[in-house]
Amino acid sequence: MREITTQDLENLAVGAAILGTGGGGDPFIGMVMAQQAIEEEGPVSLMDPDELEDEALVLPTAMMGAPTVMIEKIPEGMEAVRALRAEERMLGRKADATSPIECGGVNSQIPFAAAARAQLPVVDGDGMGRAFPELQMETFHVYGVSGTPAVVADERGAVVTIEARDNYQLEWIARGVTIRMGGHAMLVDYPMSGADFKRTAVRGTISMGIQIGEAVAGARKSGMHPVEAVCAATQDTIYGRGVVLFEGKVTDVERRTREGFAVGHALLQGLGDYEKSHLEVRFQNENLVAIRDGETIASVPDLICLLDSERATAVTTERLRYGQRVTAIGIPTPEIMRSAEALRVWGPEAFGYENLNFMPLEQRFAGYYRRYGVPKEKEKHLSTSPKA
Amino acid sequence: MREITTQDLENLAVGAAILGTGGGGDPFIGMVMAQQAIEEEGPVSLMDPDELEDEALVLPTAMMGAPTVMIEKIPEGMEAVRALRAEERMLGRKADATSPIECGGVNSQIPFAAAARAQLPVVDGDGMGRAFPELQMETFHVYGVSGTPAVVADERGAVVTIEARDNYQLEWIARGVTIRMGGHAMLVDYPMSGADFKRTAVRGTISMGIQIGEAVAGARKSGMHPVEAVCAATQDTIYGRGVVLFEGKVTDVERRTREGFAVGHALLQGLGDYEKSHLEVRFQNENLVAIRDGETIASVPDLICLLDSERATAVTTERLRYGQRVTAIGIPTPEIMRSAEALRVWGPEAFGYENLNFMPLEQRFAGYYRRYGVPKEKEKHLSTSPKA
Repeated sequence: MREITTQDLENLAVGAAILGTGGGGDPFIGMVMAQQAIEEEGPVSLMDPDELEDEALVLPTAMMGAPTVMIEKIPEGMEAVRALRAEERMLGRKADATSPIECGGVNSQIPFAAAARAQLPVVDGDGMGRAFPELQMETFHVYGVSGTPAVVADERGAVVTIEARDNYQLEWIARGVTIRMGGHAMLVDYPMSGADFKRTAVRGTISMGIQIGEAVAGARKSGMHPVEAVCAATQDTIYGRGVVLFEGKVTDVERRTREGFAVGHALLQGLGDYEKSHLEVRFQNENLVAIRDGETIASVPDLICLLDSERATAVTTERLRYGQRVTAIGIPTPEIMRSAEALRVWGPEAFGYENLNFMPLEQRFAGYYRRYGVPKEKEKHLSTSPKA
Repeated sequence: MREITTQDLENLAVGAAILGTGGGGDPFIGMVMAQQAIEEEGPVSLMDPDELEDEALVLPTAMMGAPTVMIEKIPEGMEAVRALRAEERMLGRKADATSPIECGGVNSQIPFAAAARAQLPVVDGDGMGRAFPELQMETFHVYGVSGTPAVVADERGAVVTIEARDNYQLEWIARGVTIRMGGHAMLVDYPMSGADFKRTAVRGTISMGIQIGEAVAGARKSGMHPVEAVCAATQDTIYGRGVVLFEGKVTDVERRTREGFAVGHALLQGLGDYEKSHLEVRFQNENLVAIRDGETIASVPDLICLLDSERATAVTTERLRYGQRVTAIGIPTPEIMRSAEALRVWGPEAFGYENLNFMPLEQRFAGYYRRYGVPKEKEKHLSTSPKA
């Protein structure tokens, strides 16, 4: 258990934007909300999942909908608390902690705002280990936790509770309610025991987000290249080290809104080591697939992050512009995100890439990972590498 | 308090279709649900509002959405009970009775199905005294009852509870949830005390619906013309007698779906007493305005009903066809539906007729109503008649 400072939240904003893999929403407005809540209500503690009692009640909190709308339709501040209270009434007991459902993007910050207002600790773990667009795309769902009863609350006092047939219907109904609430709302879902959280969450993702942000800030002082610092920041986590996939400049961006998603691709012309090469990154809110000179070199659920080549800050899908110099890095996703049941929910096929089998970054870049090492549970990927 | 028979429900279906004023949904599938529920669970009592204790809890039940969808997506039977139980949990107490919110169309029947399954009586009164398309179009709303907490339940186990800023937001969110549930769902809203029901409901509307159905069936035996029988059936109620507006055949129907409503008009060429005359009936789900030879002769909230000229059964908006012989009748709406605050919600202006002031049928057809008499509280309209 450690106290989270407003400085931690700034570093988390930088790190979570990278973990957003192009989507997840800009963490900035969430950070401002969280910082203001902590200033007004006092500090928030971050607790390790192992500190949770098995019988504890964890109520994850998140924003649902379009983060871009938050800039114009500003949250009132107490909607997450109203959602927490309604959930507690449904369950007939008090929450012991909140947590993120999504450590990438704005939803890394929302639980800190909610926790300060509701006087709860935040558990260091989430249900995605990155950003994904839908509520069933969570390890909680994959490993059998019910998303309901869930609560959606708006800034004007509306509170909607949802019991659903399954987590897909939860997503469907909650999305409809969020749209009718004006495009975004606060959400409590996947109410669960401490035991279930420990069993199903992607652990340590908030402290890792803070570390990534610290690495970006610290690199300027230490003289390390910021991109290199980001790659090194996840070295000793359950993810393993990031790997540079490409460096270049944006030559084309195609982006359409289809069924509520930002769908399209970016084309990069290589620079430096990658001169004469090309990279295509396809996205649906988040970056899904990276194709270098016709060969797929990374795909969901591994993280594909586009960074500003100088500063190593995240370049989100909506901010991609012609002529930008960006570096694409890959971060291997934790093993809990790669089981067969997990890949059915968020592997390439789940996003419409029917003939694309997921290949772990550690396997595809086995030489790099043999050199730097991988977490113990990932060593199997090195031995299955096609290029020994 | 009297027991409702399956025969009563058949008469109610005929009467409620007429009170649907062209909309409200065909009562038939609701009747089958209610009859089956009564056969399986035992009889249901209809109670007069005056039999309600002031402190009693009334939980109105209804179908929300498109009645046409019910034919293909058949209710499972227990969704209204799940909605009632969820509402009881929210309020922390048991219901003493249910009621309709809408006596016109399919929602005249739904409370009987719910009441049989939940072992509750049905109160004889509703919130519209006819059919209207939206949840805030209720006397309950007009006279200050909150529509929330409300519950929407589908046939596959989903239960959504809604607390809203006001009854307009309730309509907006509940409509969105219903759409996501596949187009229709069961609804509990306007939970209220017996005292509030007695103060705000349109009373006696279910027994009046049954009477109208009996009149249609009985006319065949008594030799009275069925249309005349329908007009006479409301004579001794708070509505007063129906008046024939026009008789003719359908020469044109224009019907579009706009923002979820069936919007359009029907043109009738006169027959008999109305030869050489024309009637235009404009509708938005329900019939809104009747214009004879260029003069508006009836408008919401008075009831404009198109009847089969031979059998006096209702001809709904979606069943209007070229060449049909129909008789248009008007039924004066009760005074509780005509206050200034009520007309703001459902007068002609609320439906976009900006320069049309509502004129009561009793005033416009003062000669007819002087001849037949009107309920005491409506006598003022005779004296304000432009044609003494």
